[in-house]
Amino acid sequence: MKLIGMMDSPYVRRTAISLALYGISFDSLKLSVFSDYQEFSGFNPSVKAPTLLTDDGVRLVDSSLILQYFETLAGAEKKLLPTAPAALARDTEILGTILIAAEKTVQYVYEHRLRPEEKQYQPWVERVTGQLLQACRVWESQIAGHVPSDNPDQVAVTGTVVWSFIQLMIPQVVMKSEFPVLQAIAEHYEAQPVFLRFPQ
Amino acid sequence: MKLIGMMDSPYVRRTAISLALYGISFDSLKLSVFSDYQEFSGFNPSVKAPTLLTDDGVRLVDSSLILQYFETLAGAEKKLLPTAPAALARDTEILGTILIAAEKTVQYVYEHRLRPEEKQYQPWVERVTGQLLQACRVWESQIAGHVPSDNPDQVAVTGTVVWSFIQLMIPQVVMKSEFPVLQAIAEHYEAQPVFLRFPQ
Repeated sequence: MKLIGMMDSPYVRRTAISLALYGISFDSLKLSVFSDYQEFSGFNPSVKAPTLLTDDGVRLVDSSLILQYFETLAGAEKKLLPTAPAALARDTEILGTILIAAEKTVQYVYEHRLRPEEKQYQPWVERVTGQLLQACRVWESQIAGHVPSDNPDQVAVTGTVVWSFIQLMIPQVVMKSEFPVLQAIAEHYEAQPVFLRFPQ
Repeated sequence: MKLIGMMDSPYVRRTAISLALYGISFDSLKLSVFSDYQEFSGFNPSVKAPTLLTDDGVRLVDSSLILQYFETLAGAEKKLLPTAPAALARDTEILGTILIAAEKTVQYVYEHRLRPEEKQYQPWVERVTGQLLQACRVWESQIAGHVPSDNPDQVAVTGTVVWSFIQLMIPQVVMKSEFPVLQAIAEHYEAQPVFLRFPQ
């Protein structure tokens, strides 16, 4: 099994850490969708990270789809999501908030790094920034009261990875001092072996 | 249950049609993330479509997460994805390709419709267009040989909705004459009652 993509992408990193927790072994090929476009296109002509090549020759993309596949196949003791409907709804709610924060951060970063300054569009930046900060506020309130454990679940994995990504990329936009719960939980998990195995 | 978002979004429409197939009843609130921003923010401060409010007061976002939730809870006869590993891998592979095509189409459309012309950036348009056309070629080959049925599964729902979205938005970029398999399958399903109930 080969996982293709850079660990500074939260989508690649959440996939890598989740696979490790499911007990799936894989090789990590750290190719960039930008600087390694040509080489990456040999694995996936649409050049999308993460791309996961299974041992059966199936090519999976989209971290949520990949994780759904392994979550479905995982035995009860390996699952990273609850199976009881109410608990699953709550975790799905929080994951949705986290994925909005990830998407809006990516949009913010792309606007600033992939375009020359004269092609950047301030109303878009403002829209995305507002949505991002709202998502972080909702996320902070949704996660308040969560007690970090030694057994990270999918909310812990995705939340930690996305928060660390935000803090790597745009700490001046989403200030950690304003989100103490998110910061404390991410710090807790980033110190665990499976997160240390796949640094940003 | 309330589903908030416009049906011209493939993410909203795939959610609506899938919910109907799962036998879940819901009200559709057709609010735009652009022209109804203020009203939309009352349901979700991050203004993201689709937003699904459950009867238990849970707010779900992200079509893939929402569909994973209902797929997990669905009884065997209502599931829209296979449960056998090899078949699930294949459907997950195709869904990944379809979601790349959807994302790249959204990026193309946003670039042209949400920015004044002088803020549009040609290298980005070219990158996205190339990725989109590659995804459509892969998708056409992955789906060749599929025989449309009267019981659409998740690949049928998402594929049809995304193809119709592409043809609504940018038929001059992705020409249907070059993708006869995708066009024929989408035409087949768009004529079915559950698709007609939720037009674009």
